[in-house]
Amino acid sequence: MSHAVIGKNRLEAFSDGVLAIVITIMVLELKVPHGNSFSSLEGLLPVFMSYVLSFVYIAIYWNNHHHMIHTCKSVNGSILWANLHLLFWLSLIPFTTGWMGENHFAPTPTFLYGVNLLFAAISYFILQRSIISAQGLDSILKKAIGRDRKRNISTFLYMTAIAVSLWLPFFALSLYTFVALIWIVPDKRIEQVYK
Amino acid sequence: MSHAVIGKNRLEAFSDGVLAIVITIMVLELKVPHGNSFSSLEGLLPVFMSYVLSFVYIAIYWNNHHHMIHTCKSVNGSILWANLHLLFWLSLIPFTTGWMGENHFAPTPTFLYGVNLLFAAISYFILQRSIISAQGLDSILKKAIGRDRKRNISTFLYMTAIAVSLWLPFFALSLYTFVALIWIVPDKRIEQVYK
Amino acid sequence: MSHAVIGKNRLEAFSDGVLAIVITIMVLELKVPHGNSFSSLEGLLPVFMSYVLSFVYIAIYWNNHHHMIHTCKSVNGSILWANLHLLFWLSLIPFTTGWMGENHFAPTPTFLYGVNLLFAAISYFILQRSIISAQGLDSILKKAIGRDRKRNISTFLYMTAIAVSLWLPFFALSLYTFVALIWIVPDKRIEQVYK
Amino acid sequence: MSHAVIGKNRLEAFSDGVLAIVITIMVLELKVPHGNSFSSLEGLLPVFMSYVLSFVYIAIYWNNHHHMIHTCKSVNGSILWANLHLLFWLSLIPFTTGWMGENHFAPTPTFLYGVNLLFAAISYFILQRSIISAQGLDSILKKAIGRDRKRNISTFLYMTAIAVSLWLPFFALSLYTFVALIWIVPDKRIEQVYK
Repeated sequence: MSHAVIGKNRLEAFSDGVLAIVITIMVLELKVPHGNSFSSLEGLLPVFMSYVLSFVYIAIYWNNHHHMIHTCKSVNGSILWANLHLLFWLSLIPFTTGWMGENHFAPTPTFLYGVNLLFAAISYFILQRSIISAQGLDSILKKAIGRDRKRNISTFLYMTAIAVSLWLPFFALSLYTFVALIWIVPDKRIEQVYK
Repeated sequence: MSHAVIGKNRLEAFSDGVLAIVITIMVLELKVPHGNSFSSLEGLLPVFMSYVLSFVYIAIYWNNHHHMIHTCKSVNGSILWANLHLLFWLSLIPFTTGWMGENHFAPTPTFLYGVNLLFAAISYFILQRSIISAQGLDSILKKAIGRDRKRNISTFLYMTAIAVSLWLPFFALSLYTFVALIWIVPDKRIEQVYK
Repeated sequence: MSHAVIGKNRLEAFSDGVLAIVITIMVLELKVPHGNSFSSLEGLLPVFMSYVLSFVYIAIYWNNHHHMIHTCKSVNGSILWANLHLLFWLSLIPFTTGWMGENHFAPTPTFLYGVNLLFAAISYFILQRSIISAQGLDSILKKAIGRDRKRNISTFLYMTAIAVSLWLPFFALSLYTFVALIWIVPDKRIEQVYK
Repeated sequence: MSHAVIGKNRLEAFSDGVLAIVITIMVLELKVPHGNSFSSLEGLLPVFMSYVLSFVYIAIYWNNHHHMIHTCKSVNGSILWANLHLLFWLSLIPFTTGWMGENHFAPTPTFLYGVNLLFAAISYFILQRSIISAQGLDSILKKAIGRDRKRNISTFLYMTAIAVSLWLPFFALSLYTFVALIWIVPDKRIEQVYK
């Protein structure tokens, strides 16, 4: 068993661990309310909705991360750090989610949530580049991704959402939701290349 | 090692991670009391009892999940998302457990707890369907499950419990407990088929 | 790869996950103090000391669990549930540790901590029995354990400590510490048998 | 599959689990602020900066731990305990990070943070020694490490930083940051020896 294979397994295990914790501790922001009637849940509705949105986002990242790492044969230092960089931005999701939810999608928290999503997307892109460059000329991942329209569209939508979030937070929110829907389908392109 | 095998391993690892965190962070709802006498623990008794019930439920899900995924040879996109959907409902258990416990099994929280259990059961069923449909005509899982009486009984009991919870929360609670007892035995049916 | 082997791997992975979380969330009881001088740390000293003790206990359980499961060839339903039962008692350690620490080793919390340790020890013993009975006549684990003096001594010391804790909590505490020291050496007996 | 190999896998899995939790629960110190404007985030800036620094530190430890354990063929009792000892000091990082951040790098918390880093470094060194001594005369790890200048420099810088932290906390902070930068490159020395 070579160095590379072990490294990849531990990178997957560590990433799975961090993502599993991120997705689960977000529920701690859903603070148990003091009353015991349905009306005491009302204030929690926006917190719950942001929880659902972020749960889906982390699930998408886990899913695509899984497909992307699958194309790796070896893991080098820059892949390791690019991966940690991605995990850093994802680890902030519980915080930005909580702030947005507790303030019922007020402009500034909705803006910050978008910035967090954008940085996560950028760090995912950097990780992709690191893997492609490690795979060299006949990179499976490069072939699979092709022109990468999905990424370009998402980046454009994130930036639009961030730009308008301070005036129209609910419009920004629907753009975030729309991007999630685009990505909910796992990266068919990679499955394609393997066939 | 084919794509499918790796996917299955990571799906198991991620699910184990999420379930391990869910089962453990519930203990954070058991807030350390301020007094230092036995009487200061009294208020915690219902919280503790709900903790025990939910611990058993998560354990049952982990156990049966483990048997069910074992029958999978490959994992496709719909299995992945059905699994994440199940994890979503289970991730809410610490919240509904905490609310029910802190309100000493008041009607509304006991109702919500039942709804959470019902949705978890439904999402488990959807996951089962996804696996069976991926396995095709000679599905091992389908043979193992047969007429699935256990599931039908549980669904019926959950719905009864939810219906009466707003009037008789303690009766609802005993139904939840009873369903847990039915399932505490792991799915013998699957073990059967393998012999 | 047979059913049993997979089951064992997931049982290990799930137990490792729960123990890793238990050992780490205990640190959340070390609440960041409000002052910024050394004196504001003083009140935390007993919390820190209980943290150290419980960290060592969880580490010992992880260590011996690891050796014990290693002797397993297969995992059946009763082993699975005996293992979950052990994890249940260990999952309560952060709560009892926090209560004992925050009350500076007051009698009742120190009593409860001992009860928790005793139940964990009993559930470990039940797990051991389940494994031995599954292994049948030539059980490796049974040979390894022999007369099991260490366990008998610990049980005796736990019970003594619990009995006196309400009058002499610090004596109880030293007994808990002493039992930890006895066990800090991993189960050499199992390593012996393998040679 | 021999005893040693299994032991090593579980040691890695457990360490990965603990490090993944430590790196993620630190974000819980980033408490969601009450206001919903940018100015309500201002007070969080030092907490965020300490989060970034500690995230990088845990990432470095995970990375180098990964390379170091890779050189192990077998795991004995002293390696297991040296590893748990390292995890103990790293598990305190969320606490010392939170205290330092919330007090905007006041002298005493900055001092304590440095002490925590120093103890983590010492325990890492002890783990290294345990592995080298288990590997015997032709230890791969020993060859890889050589004169270990990086470690000596770090120890010197930590001690300097701790010494001045009570007078010049921001100078101490820049030394902590500088040590992180030295280590951000994974241990090339080990990769070298394998070639």
